[in-house]
Amino acid sequence: RRLHYERDPAAIYRASFATVRAEARLDRFTPDLAAVAVRLIHACGMVDVADRLAFSPDVAARGHAALAAGAPVLCDCEMVGAGIIRRYLPAENDIIVTLNDARVPRMARDMGTTRSAAAVDLWRDRIEGAVVAVGNAPTALFHLLERLDAGWPKPAAILGFPVGFVGAAESKAALAADPRGCAYLALRGRRGGSAMASAAVNALAAGLPEEG
Amino acid sequence: RRLHYERDPAAIYRASFATVRAEARLDRFTPDLAAVAVRLIHACGMVDVADRLAFSPDVAARGHAALAAGAPVLCDCEMVGAGIIRRYLPAENDIIVTLNDARVPRMARDMGTTRSAAAVDLWRDRIEGAVVAVGNAPTALFHLLERLDAGWPKPAAILGFPVGFVGAAESKAALAADPRGCAYLALRGRRGGSAMASAAVNALAAGLPEEG
Repeated sequence: RRLHYERDPAAIYRASFATVRAEARLDRFTPDLAAVAVRLIHACGMVDVADRLAFSPDVAARGHAALAAGAPVLCDCEMVGAGIIRRYLPAENDIIVTLNDARVPRMARDMGTTRSAAAVDLWRDRIEGAVVAVGNAPTALFHLLERLDAGWPKPAAILGFPVGFVGAAESKAALAADPRGCAYLALRGRRGGSAMASAAVNALAAGLPEEG
Repeated sequence: RRLHYERDPAAIYRASFATVRAEARLDRFTPDLAAVAVRLIHACGMVDVADRLAFSPDVAARGHAALAAGAPVLCDCEMVGAGIIRRYLPAENDIIVTLNDARVPRMARDMGTTRSAAAVDLWRDRIEGAVVAVGNAPTALFHLLERLDAGWPKPAAILGFPVGFVGAAESKAALAADPRGCAYLALRGRRGGSAMASAAVNALAAGLPEEG
């Protein structure tokens, strides 16, 4: 039995893109930010995330310029790294995930915080001008903001998509209220996740979703 | 400046779990399915996904038994594999992702379908009794259903979380309408994604979310 469904990658792309354009409210975005929003919507299947994005107007431009200049992508978990489409990256950029570094459990105990937050401390030597993608842990985003307040060099862009019920909405609100001089993009509220964080990186790297 | 937020992993876990239990409608689930639903909700930050799950009542038991017996986990994309917590797996189970196999682009062209669908054909030798986790491509789930209709051996459980605007809702509805003798769990509608697919595997492997 042959089921009835669309098999052509180009047709799938067109139909999906048409649905997003028809349903999502994109009029408040510049074209480059609209492309980012479209990719985020593709990643999660929810058109209303467009209404809940907080951002600095220059985040797409600054994020893309940073990647083009060779900036690394710092991710709070392996899934974010796994979702980044390598061939999009303009400079074979490093994708760095420190969460599973052997030093992290001890650092977390010593600091009295989560492993996700402690892992951020290992970004110190790569943070300047980097693109940060947080797709899981609110504590990673909070910890980064604290380190920036303490004088760390600044990343070029912070993509804030921690998810869940404890600190996710609050950490993203803290970022949007004071992005510490960084360009940023964040999804307000509890929703988020690694797929959206990866999609944001892919959008900064490549613009609109590709076919396939 | 020290920001005010919860840093204790155990406290984060307790608070998050309490919120999910307070807000989500879990009364229609058996305890083992409720544990799966809680993990899915944790992964996405949306309590209402509990209301949109389709499932066979034995999916948690059959999925766990398959993993305990050493069944592989077949994933439609790398992100799903990256989200599976290895230490939960009861038998050092293989995690198999064929999407980036060098044969896939040609197979997709020859079959007139997507790479995601073609990659399913490379599951043939490992499908019997396996746990299948689809977290991205509707065409992968549709293609699997067609292969099962054509007489393939059956996986133990199908976790259906393809996402998006073209075929996602339809492929999951097709699974729920006729799961082809497999245990299954699926999120109806457009929502889904790799984080939820991984969370479903982790729940089958380990039950309730751990602290941290």
